[in-house]
Amino acid sequence: MSKQITFVTGNKNKLREVIAVLTNNTTNPNKDPTTPQETTAQIGKYTLTNQKLDLDELQGSINEVTIHKARQAAKIIGGPALVEDTCLAFNALNDLPGPYIKWFVDKVGLEGLNKMLVGFDDKSAKAITTFGYCESADENAEVLLFQGITEGNIVKSRGPTDFGWDSIFEPNGFETTYAEMKGVEKNKISHRSKALAKLKTFLLENDK
Amino acid sequence: MSKQITFVTGNKNKLREVIAVLTNNTTNPNKDPTTPQETTAQIGKYTLTNQKLDLDELQGSINEVTIHKARQAAKIIGGPALVEDTCLAFNALNDLPGPYIKWFVDKVGLEGLNKMLVGFDDKSAKAITTFGYCESADENAEVLLFQGITEGNIVKSRGPTDFGWDSIFEPNGFETTYAEMKGVEKNKISHRSKALAKLKTFLLENDK
Repeated sequence: MSKQITFVTGNKNKLREVIAVLTNNTTNPNKDPTTPQETTAQIGKYTLTNQKLDLDELQGSINEVTIHKARQAAKIIGGPALVEDTCLAFNALNDLPGPYIKWFVDKVGLEGLNKMLVGFDDKSAKAITTFGYCESADENAEVLLFQGITEGNIVKSRGPTDFGWDSIFEPNGFETTYAEMKGVEKNKISHRSKALAKLKTFLLENDK
Repeated sequence: MSKQITFVTGNKNKLREVIAVLTNNTTNPNKDPTTPQETTAQIGKYTLTNQKLDLDELQGSINEVTIHKARQAAKIIGGPALVEDTCLAFNALNDLPGPYIKWFVDKVGLEGLNKMLVGFDDKSAKAITTFGYCESADENAEVLLFQGITEGNIVKSRGPTDFGWDSIFEPNGFETTYAEMKGVEKNKISHRSKALAKLKTFLLENDK
């Protein structure tokens, strides 16, 4: 029997990217979903569905933030929950803004994020996605973490600016920012796809 | 009959500063407390005591962070709780690092905080303290906020570095950083003393 996992996100771009990687969908994940296949996924014995929830986001390390969100989601849903937290960690800032990056994108902007590094020689950064999977609604339930990291540099914004900080992150070995890449190309090397590959392996290996 | 309020902090410097301002204590609040008067305070019908608790700190605005902490504290204590959150808001960064300042002090350091502003002409900042007072353990209990703001500039570190970011904040109208000021002098103009003055007025006016 299929077991349902609820992925908690209100961000359609994230949802499409996740579904595309988990199902090896090679269509452009940036287009609007037109078929149910693109907003749910079947992996092994698991069915991944989606729900938007307001979860508390703590201050703390990316792991602490993710563990807290996963437990809270499983408690609200009353069953297996999958959450995600994405960081942009500037090496010059000892991995900050890190889990607070969305506030900086919102308040400081993409140009401002570049300016914050003017005083530092080191413009390198890590894009980090951590998925947290929690099966039970117990307060101290175990949370499994699946983390992917892609290293790169912070550059002046190039490409579409509709997906967070993608237009200022140029992964190592490429001359394009995330935002300038096609979905399929980005999914091959992105922090999120690396984290999802680990999650997928776990889901398939648990397919008893 | 005296009503007890528990101020939640594990930071002795903060506690002494608060007690000194609330009781108009003109002794140096930076020295170690040697008498009980310096770690408890009587204001009107209220007795302020102290407890160290691990409270969740949410991501969000300073008001959201403070409201959440005050409710959680009142719930744990089972009665009136007072919490405090202090921000350092860089105007060039649209008030960030704000509530995340302690992570930046810890990870980036005082020199790093200066470097983050190299790319910006505007070095001005606001020191903001918000006290949150919650009387009841109810989940949606009202939280009263008492906020004080002191404007100034971010400068190279001068003075002792044992109290957060005090050595890089030079309040407007002064040629000294917070860290270079005597306790009494700082208490006259500090963001925390302004917030405490509002709290004190509230506590005295409720002295029926």
